Amino acid sequence: MRVIYSDKHHLHDPPLEYWEGEMLPFYESPRRAEMILRAVRAAELGPIDAPSDFGLDPILAVHDADYVHFLQHVYPAWVAGGRNPKGVHPDTFAMRGMVRRPRDLALQAGYYSHDVTTVITAGTWQAAYDAAQSALTAAHWVAKGEPAAFAVCRPPGHHAHSDLSAGYCFLNNAAIAAHWLTEHAVAGRANTVALLDIDFHHGNGSQQIFYTRRDVFYVSLHADPERHYPYFLGGAEERGSGEGYGYNLNVPLPAGVTDDAYLAALDQACIAIERYDPVWVVVSLGVDTFVGDPIGDFALTRRAYPRIGARIAQLNRPTVFIMEGGYAIDCLGENVACVLTGFLARTI
Amino acid sequence: MRVIYSDKHHLHDPPLEYWEGEMLPFYESPRRAEMILRAVRAAELGPIDAPSDFGLDPILAVHDADYVHFLQHVYPAWVAGGRNPKGVHPDTFAMRGMVRRPRDLALQAGYYSHDVTTVITAGTWQAAYDAAQSALTAAHWVAKGEPAAFAVCRPPGHHAHSDLSAGYCFLNNAAIAAHWLTEHAVAGRANTVALLDIDFHHGNGSQQIFYTRRDVFYVSLHADPERHYPYFLGGAEERGSGEGYGYNLNVPLPAGVTDDAYLAALDQACIAIERYDPVWVVVSLGVDTFVGDPIGDFALTRRAYPRIGARIAQLNRPTVFIMEGGYAIDCLGENVACVLTGFLARTI
Repeated sequence: MRVIYSDKHHLHDPPLEYWEGEMLPFYESPRRAEMILRAVRAAELGPIDAPSDFGLDPILAVHDADYVHFLQHVYPAWVAGGRNPKGVHPDTFAMRGMVRRPRDLALQAGYYSHDVTTVITAGTWQAAYDAAQSALTAAHWVAKGEPAAFAVCRPPGHHAHSDLSAGYCFLNNAAIAAHWLTEHAVAGRANTVALLDIDFHHGNGSQQIFYTRRDVFYVSLHADPERHYPYFLGGAEERGSGEGYGYNLNVPLPAGVTDDAYLAALDQACIAIERYDPVWVVVSLGVDTFVGDPIGDFALTRRAYPRIGARIAQLNRPTVFIMEGGYAIDCLGENVACVLTGFLARTI
Repeated sequence: MRVIYSDKHHLHDPPLEYWEGEMLPFYESPRRAEMILRAVRAAELGPIDAPSDFGLDPILAVHDADYVHFLQHVYPAWVAGGRNPKGVHPDTFAMRGMVRRPRDLALQAGYYSHDVTTVITAGTWQAAYDAAQSALTAAHWVAKGEPAAFAVCRPPGHHAHSDLSAGYCFLNNAAIAAHWLTEHAVAGRANTVALLDIDFHHGNGSQQIFYTRRDVFYVSLHADPERHYPYFLGGAEERGSGEGYGYNLNVPLPAGVTDDAYLAALDQACIAIERYDPVWVVVSLGVDTFVGDPIGDFALTRRAYPRIGARIAQLNRPTVFIMEGGYAIDCLGENVACVLTGFLARTI
């Protein structure tokens, strides 16, 4: 399995985040990707390469151009206004009825963000850009005939909407890869992607980006938004709209989900994907489903992860794994490697 | 001039607020109302009374019932979830396309808030309720024939939408008073209110509440939202909609506005009000226009404030003053008293 990793993720390293009225160490830290790299190297999954550069076009195919411009240029505008050089910190948000967008990029922070976690530092754009290129590089390998590839994307992506940063995410790496795959036609059949999201959190951004499309089937297992982020999207009743109706499947799960219960839910999701019969599978791979995760409330043990990988392998499609969340830092790398080795072993 | 003051504002006293990535002392502190009370007492404006209780109905005439329920009951739900007992701190917001409202009141924090300043403590509802009752009591006095009354409202109100807390505000005291006045008909003519907002910031909530109405003319002088909060509303191009078109007048002002320039802009606003010919005037009184204010960037001196009061007096209508912002704590009380003594003196 090809592994894509860019060292530039280190350029995105906000020191603190705001959480329920306190400043805490930034959960989504560079150490996450380091731990994952170490574990996939130890697992000898395959060659580990830096991403190729596919340019901005595949990003702009998924994201709003003004939003991308904001991500690229806001940091200097923020600092030029005499603001905290530690990073752009959104604190005031364009809520319902507020359609006016200020011209000053620094004041657009709350127009283009969903929450306070999307701190933009001097190097955030470069890190996010390379994460997107990593996802594209992985998709490229699979389009060229590799059975699977894994992009160690950081910052993660699945919360990012077409025009909103959200939940540590800026560019939606999985959506960028999935859309890119739909444009690489396979002779004789509709060029479709199942985007399977097994992060603990609902991928609100991925849902939003593909909500009206039927060529990308978004399927997500996640904590019920009645209990966890992103709160305002992720219900089972959200099934897509227009042409996309029926091509968005949310499976909200209760607290304390065990290995067997999770695997049963994943099996149902995979059956839905098999019915959809996609050409490609993109997996938004989060392991914040782990019992020891400091953010999540599921109860998955280490033993669940090879089983998850094996069930995905049984879909028997070219598969692109895109790294999303997971914050139990000491177990993070090995949990990720377990999914991928389980996938390669193909047995549950 | 009748003055209304409730000591219950002390019940709303969050220790810190999030500002550009740091925790700072909460600007909108109880000392603000104490300083104002001291100054208006020293100025001998008139009798100072506690508010009467008009109940919830006049609040619900302006605010969404579910939003009011949230304000009343969210704090215990937040604490019951094991969250920071210092207060409800919104950090994740229901942006465009996010229509789902979680059932858990604690998770509704970002559904019903515009920004991170609207921290809800154990006593916030009681403080906000009494501020609204203070505004109503002041309106009541004026409706009964007093030429003017002043409600020392804290927390302030003009940023609060019908269903959003915003900018330190929970209940829109001025809007509640203005709407109440429209329902106390004066024989023989349309029962109209000019809501004149001279706080440094645009009163986005007041604008939203009356945007489609012509019986309340919202007129605001404020820092250009291209430069200052609330950013996403407050442009001169926002003129009302439907029946309310033409009955919303925003006058965004540049940084460094001097006494004379401000008075000239106020004069134009008052001419528009005179043309509208309202029965009542409600003034959203902020003095964060002061040169020494730590939040604002205007350059008004102490000498501007009696002139502002006198120009408002020349409108020659029964007038309800509602306290809004002002954060130069040592000068706050006297600046407020200067507006009111200038009003009583009626000379510029």
